[in-house]
Amino acid sequence: MSETASRPRGLDALMAPASIAVVGASDDATRIGGRPLRYLLDAGYAGRVYPVNPHRATVQGLPAFASLGDIGAAVDLAIVAVPAAAVVATLEECAAHAVGAAVVFSSGFAEMGGAHGGGQHAMSAIARDSGMRILGPNCLGHYNAGVGVFATFSSAIELDRPCAGPVGVVSQSGAYGGHVAFLARSRGVQVGLLITTGNECDVEAAECIEWMARREEVRVIAACAEGLRDGDALCRALHTARAHRKPVVFLKMGRSEVGARAAMSHTASLAGRDAVYDAVFREFGVHRALDTDEMIDIAYAASFGILPAEERLGLVSVSGGMGIQMADAAERNGIALLPMPEATQARLKRRLPFASPVNPVDITAQVFNDRALLDENLDAMLEEGGYTALVAFFTYVAGVAFMAAPLREAMARARARFPDRLIVLSIVAPADIVRGYEAVGCPCFEDPDRAVRAAATLSRYTRAFDAAPRTAASSDLPAPVSLRAGQMPDEQAAFAMLVEAGMPAPPLHAAADAEAAVRAARTLGFPVALKIRSAQIAHKSDVGGVRLGLDGEAAVRDAFTQMLARVRAQAPHAQLDGVLVAPMAPPGIDMILGVQRDALFGPVLMIGLGGVFVEVLEDVVLERAPLDAPLARAMLRRLKAWPLLDGARGGEPVDLDALCAAMVALSRFAAANRDRIESIDVNPLRVFARGRGAWMLDALVQPCPLPPPA
Amino acid sequence: MSETASRPRGLDALMAPASIAVVGASDDATRIGGRPLRYLLDAGYAGRVYPVNPHRATVQGLPAFASLGDIGAAVDLAIVAVPAAAVVATLEECAAHAVGAAVVFSSGFAEMGGAHGGGQHAMSAIARDSGMRILGPNCLGHYNAGVGVFATFSSAIELDRPCAGPVGVVSQSGAYGGHVAFLARSRGVQVGLLITTGNECDVEAAECIEWMARREEVRVIAACAEGLRDGDALCRALHTARAHRKPVVFLKMGRSEVGARAAMSHTASLAGRDAVYDAVFREFGVHRALDTDEMIDIAYAASFGILPAEERLGLVSVSGGMGIQMADAAERNGIALLPMPEATQARLKRRLPFASPVNPVDITAQVFNDRALLDENLDAMLEEGGYTALVAFFTYVAGVAFMAAPLREAMARARARFPDRLIVLSIVAPADIVRGYEAVGCPCFEDPDRAVRAAATLSRYTRAFDAAPRTAASSDLPAPVSLRAGQMPDEQAAFAMLVEAGMPAPPLHAAADAEAAVRAARTLGFPVALKIRSAQIAHKSDVGGVRLGLDGEAAVRDAFTQMLARVRAQAPHAQLDGVLVAPMAPPGIDMILGVQRDALFGPVLMIGLGGVFVEVLEDVVLERAPLDAPLARAMLRRLKAWPLLDGARGGEPVDLDALCAAMVALSRFAAANRDRIESIDVNPLRVFARGRGAWMLDALVQPCPLPPPA
Repeated sequence: MSETASRPRGLDALMAPASIAVVGASDDATRIGGRPLRYLLDAGYAGRVYPVNPHRATVQGLPAFASLGDIGAAVDLAIVAVPAAAVVATLEECAAHAVGAAVVFSSGFAEMGGAHGGGQHAMSAIARDSGMRILGPNCLGHYNAGVGVFATFSSAIELDRPCAGPVGVVSQSGAYGGHVAFLARSRGVQVGLLITTGNECDVEAAECIEWMARREEVRVIAACAEGLRDGDALCRALHTARAHRKPVVFLKMGRSEVGARAAMSHTASLAGRDAVYDAVFREFGVHRALDTDEMIDIAYAASFGILPAEERLGLVSVSGGMGIQMADAAERNGIALLPMPEATQARLKRRLPFASPVNPVDITAQVFNDRALLDENLDAMLEEGGYTALVAFFTYVAGVAFMAAPLREAMARARARFPDRLIVLSIVAPADIVRGYEAVGCPCFEDPDRAVRAAATLSRYTRAFDAAPRTAASSDLPAPVSLRAGQMPDEQAAFAMLVEAGMPAPPLHAAADAEAAVRAARTLGFPVALKIRSAQIAHKSDVGGVRLGLDGEAAVRDAFTQMLARVRAQAPHAQLDGVLVAPMAPPGIDMILGVQRDALFGPVLMIGLGGVFVEVLEDVVLERAPLDAPLARAMLRRLKAWPLLDGARGGEPVDLDALCAAMVALSRFAAANRDRIESIDVNPLRVFARGRGAWMLDALVQPCPLPPPA
Repeated sequence: MSETASRPRGLDALMAPASIAVVGASDDATRIGGRPLRYLLDAGYAGRVYPVNPHRATVQGLPAFASLGDIGAAVDLAIVAVPAAAVVATLEECAAHAVGAAVVFSSGFAEMGGAHGGGQHAMSAIARDSGMRILGPNCLGHYNAGVGVFATFSSAIELDRPCAGPVGVVSQSGAYGGHVAFLARSRGVQVGLLITTGNECDVEAAECIEWMARREEVRVIAACAEGLRDGDALCRALHTARAHRKPVVFLKMGRSEVGARAAMSHTASLAGRDAVYDAVFREFGVHRALDTDEMIDIAYAASFGILPAEERLGLVSVSGGMGIQMADAAERNGIALLPMPEATQARLKRRLPFASPVNPVDITAQVFNDRALLDENLDAMLEEGGYTALVAFFTYVAGVAFMAAPLREAMARARARFPDRLIVLSIVAPADIVRGYEAVGCPCFEDPDRAVRAAATLSRYTRAFDAAPRTAASSDLPAPVSLRAGQMPDEQAAFAMLVEAGMPAPPLHAAADAEAAVRAARTLGFPVALKIRSAQIAHKSDVGGVRLGLDGEAAVRDAFTQMLARVRAQAPHAQLDGVLVAPMAPPGIDMILGVQRDALFGPVLMIGLGGVFVEVLEDVVLERAPLDAPLARAMLRRLKAWPLLDGARGGEPVDLDALCAAMVALSRFAAANRDRIESIDVNPLRVFARGRGAWMLDALVQPCPLPPPA
């Protein structure tokens, strides 16, 4: 079998094959080996289909082949519907015949535990060695309705055949992917593509997201995962989606403790810390959905292809009560409600004294009698109010026969005049009437709260898409430091490397004798602290090697002599190199600044305000390293403790520039040493009043337990 | 027209009238005056119906009357469908003819602003003077489908005629009430009763809740309000509902700032502080819904009449991924997931090695092939696991023809064996198949997250219903104090009345001269504080009237002399009564304890930990006064700062008994003086280590601005 230049490769072979073999094809269209064949035939798949079944001459009316080798033509995609025990041999045969991609439904591999994942390792090796892509095992397969490819045994296909449509769904869990795609379709949301990746012996969810992001026909990607293996691949995928301005809505399971435990036991994947996912999603402008309704709602609204240019939401209601409820929903969804211009309010109020034209705009049920009112109010909101998104509540009245047509026409007029604005309706109506509103470009929700959530969420994508990628922060990283794996540097060395990296620290003067210490103290100004200097002493205070608050020359001189005597007595074998003289730190606010190497996403910077904020309230903010100063500032603003930093509560504002500079410096140091350093704790980083800088007062650098890669 | 003893009175006349007059009845069944008549006739209302219309001999086939007086028979309910200007005269005529109740649809009253509410005050007076109950104005009316009463012009009735059913809806907003009732019915939830109260010139939402709570046919009440006028009436209604073990789910609008502002401008009602509603709902076991879907979901699930005896939730899934997502949902909804017994896990694991039988129990798709598995797992969970509620996820497979019947039968068997357990399904299926699962007693949700939320919420009602009413805390309240309205007592008087009420305070010794002060200090032990004693000096430190940390006899003696001299110089006209000698307060944790008189709910106790917790995080907990010690303890546990009080974070635990005793004492004092005191601030209340008590260090008592009632 020869390859031709035009054959699809990689995920193209999986998703848009020109030929499909069904290995284990069954004549019984209700069996797992029969269903994909039937679905392909029913969908009118235009490529060639080869059933492979050594026991039959024909399968479901098609000529059958005894083996892949008997086909005698190129196979882009092999659907492998054989028992678990036969899977590896089948895949080897596929690879031998230059099949482009294979999908494996069978379960009983890595999800069962056991050595080598029950053969899954062998499957990964086949993919790696041959270049053939393998989806699964333990998955529900995939479909690409636009080209009639149905490589799935999901019986949901029989209940409601998918059509081409702008929503792509990627799910690790087969059952969940099938559920969400079916549920979405049952609500009129066109899920044109579905990929379930199951155990991910080769093809991972991240790649599928990236592949969809590049496809013209996909407008929005709904993804669901329990835990990923390759953080970089996810970041690449989300970067691609952002670059193509494709909204991604992500349901990351395992947020709760029990859920995370279940995720760990359910899959072999490394469950990265959940909060780090939040940081990554924020970085790439991904909306994290908490439940299935939310995911479907956002995907549905985004499928209309209108992303408001700004976060500027207007609410219209035929009921004052519901206006209030919608305002509550806007606040819950983090979007401000700017009022209508005063002059417009006055004009509308003259027109309809009952109404409240602020925002929410209550046009009252009068609009059903006086239909010009609706046009006037919509125009006023879109033109004068400048709202980039509207949510309009018409409840069941929008479904009443005599109102449906005029309402739909009013919406069509508004859409035509302001094609870049998002107009979301909250109505309760029969499906055919809903389809009518959708046809003029208005997403429809029964519950106004969900309409507001969708509009608020869509209003955030544009800013995320317009934000520059954070690659700039990664340029000119400092040279990596030399660290011995598994061996923690002492405080002095840790300080030295962090100061070298740009972290602020008090000036330290080495002094070999008492008079040198006094001279150093005089230079620094009193009071000062003395610390013993010795590579052999890690915990200085334990051996009397720290003295604080020395406020005169005599005190420094005495302290030096006493300290050296005491340390010599307590640590007789340590080589002493005199002392370090440091100024006493002035009062300030103590922050905790740290880096942890996340198994998936590499070094992650953490900032929080020390004391109860970190310890009791877990008030910390995370971002992937490296970061720049504006991002550092944004992190601080997300802290609950923020009012204590910016002086909003009457206190003195701290030196935010110095704090941000320290965060940036540490993040760049961590990024430069991402393979060498497991964690860094700067605790505390004391930040002084505005213009006075910051000092790290204690620092620990923990290298990776294993040698860094060569 | 004579009344008979059997005529319904009050809300009974409104909701279950034996005769109905439609004033302003129209022959045109699409008009507001025509619709109620048509709905009554279509519903086969069994009582007598009298159209009142002076211009016609018949209306919609019934003989018409020129006026109410011409009817010549008792009228229980008058539906008033006349222009706003004619409403008051019509109601006067109704009252003159001893009509039991009237419903007024017209708008253009208090919601418009203006003097006397555009006639609404007159309507209130008619109701008050005559005893006739009036619903509205500016409402959508009401219906009671079980007896065919449709006193509404809501066209939703035409789209989907309501049937008798266990869900009662009460809404202030007419449009919202109509929306939620219609939406619920469109989802198969039987809303048998709906009342919209509109402007509430007489009948208020709280009374309607209470009326429904007493009705046999009502199983669950869904209520919606923007703001109520009578907090006591709401508490009485919620008390009645709890006593009748009727779950109430309440959508209180106006939680957000914009929403609250809109609520204020939209209605004439006093918007009580939103957080106080939270406290009241918690007190009576009411579930506060945040949106319409949530309200409908809970009402729907509760309509099955099964409230789990305990909070013990089990999750069953055919998908490991969805199990994780459901576990996340359980945590979000505040319900713990207890694991299955070890032995049961081991047995189930032997039966199905693929499965994860912990909780969530993943029974895998295998259950669709091996149907006995389902019975075994359900029995194991209900019998051995002892779960009082289960949520089972079967997705669209439950709707596939060959699975629907066996699944339904398995559910019926489990329901029969464990009739007190709640079994909620997460399925996606056509309506008729869903109705089949419902018929065996299983509420069905498409989204498993919403199924979990409903099960978790229903699991909490029983504990709330079993909790004793808080009346005990109100017994033996102290006698009220005498306070001059509008005049704040000085610190000394405030301390005295609070100490009398049982609040802990440092011992204060009055001393007229220096030697008396020294003797007092000796008794108290050094160091001590001196404070000037004078009824004319409110701010003592401003005139040098406070000295702290006096640690010897000489210091006390000198301080006394200096203080008197300085105060005499600074406040020459004040009468000085010597000093107060107080011990210095030992270190402890400073709480902020206060009372505010809520416009709706009376005195409300607030507790928080001083400093950043209150000021930056707004970490305070509210409850209506008075309260008892267990409730005080529960309040503390709800504080984010709780770990700092109970020593969980390594600190020393504070004297929680003393803190709770102070909260109880202050709450009882506030309750005893509910008409006299506007607010009390004890800031700080310093709480010492366990066994060491607490002291109030500063206290302000603010009387009501107006004279207390006689």
